[in-house]
Amino acid sequence: MPDPTIREAGRADAGAIAALILPVFRAGDTYAIDPAITAEAAVEYWLSPDKTTFMAELGGMVMGTYYLRPNQGGGGAHVCNCGYITAPDARGKGIARAMLAHSLDQGRARGYRAMQYNFVVSTNTRAIETWDRAGFETVGRLPAAFHHPTEGYVDALVMFRSLV
Amino acid sequence: MPDPTIREAGRADAGAIAALILPVFRAGDTYAIDPAITAEAAVEYWLSPDKTTFMAELGGMVMGTYYLRPNQGGGGAHVCNCGYITAPDARGKGIARAMLAHSLDQGRARGYRAMQYNFVVSTNTRAIETWDRAGFETVGRLPAAFHHPTEGYVDALVMFRSLV
Repeated sequence: MPDPTIREAGRADAGAIAALILPVFRAGDTYAIDPAITAEAAVEYWLSPDKTTFMAELGGMVMGTYYLRPNQGGGGAHVCNCGYITAPDARGKGIARAMLAHSLDQGRARGYRAMQYNFVVSTNTRAIETWDRAGFETVGRLPAAFHHPTEGYVDALVMFRSLV
Repeated sequence: MPDPTIREAGRADAGAIAALILPVFRAGDTYAIDPAITAEAAVEYWLSPDKTTFMAELGGMVMGTYYLRPNQGGGGAHVCNCGYITAPDARGKGIARAMLAHSLDQGRARGYRAMQYNFVVSTNTRAIETWDRAGFETVGRLPAAFHHPTEGYVDALVMFRSLV
């Protein structure tokens, strides 16, 4: 299986980003974002100035996108945060794993000392297993902090990995 | 000791808010906010549209301020988040305790099911003890996630309290 190409995103990727992220936000079962968010607001969020956003492509087709940003300001700015979205028809092609590896490299290259996911919905077991395998630890559990569209109130996890 | 009066803040409170929050942000030892933030940006942050901001007064003098906001959007919007700042010369006058009680009442009144503090610097023992006593649990520990100006890298805590 060929590796995807991962490059920085720009304004010209707005349409591809919207196509990737809107179905995920609309589903409302993994991201704590209003499912009714407009396409414009969703793209603004994904490309906001505090983030560096990337596109993953395979054979010239966009297969995924992720962002990297400082998780906090001031004394917390040495920890980064990422969000990843893979196209549904790109599952099993190594896109998520490639974006994760790329983000860990990028985090280190930019001088971050750790990476934190603030709000991992506990029913998102596929993502949790991927991050477990990549060395992330569950450092927090937020009881019933997420209202899942079909599962009701479920926990959210805080996951953390040192980069040094 | 008389109870402070707590009321909603408005744009007219910008000066009083700046006087309260800037020294805390400049000190850089409790909030994960750039200590070099401008006064304008700090006030914008404290009064941002996603927040409801309050002023605590005693004998007509401003003694503290706090904000309440949804901690996440979408499926996470039933958990609120607060930030509190008490004037240094108002310590021991019950201001922090009164703002905390007010915020728990406000959280409940607005239909939130829980309150979460995302990033409590572990050296801020005074605040942690206050929140422990008020029924908050430490549900997460972020290793070395805060660079303290004098203590170096220290942990940050995630604290959580049900409101139902």
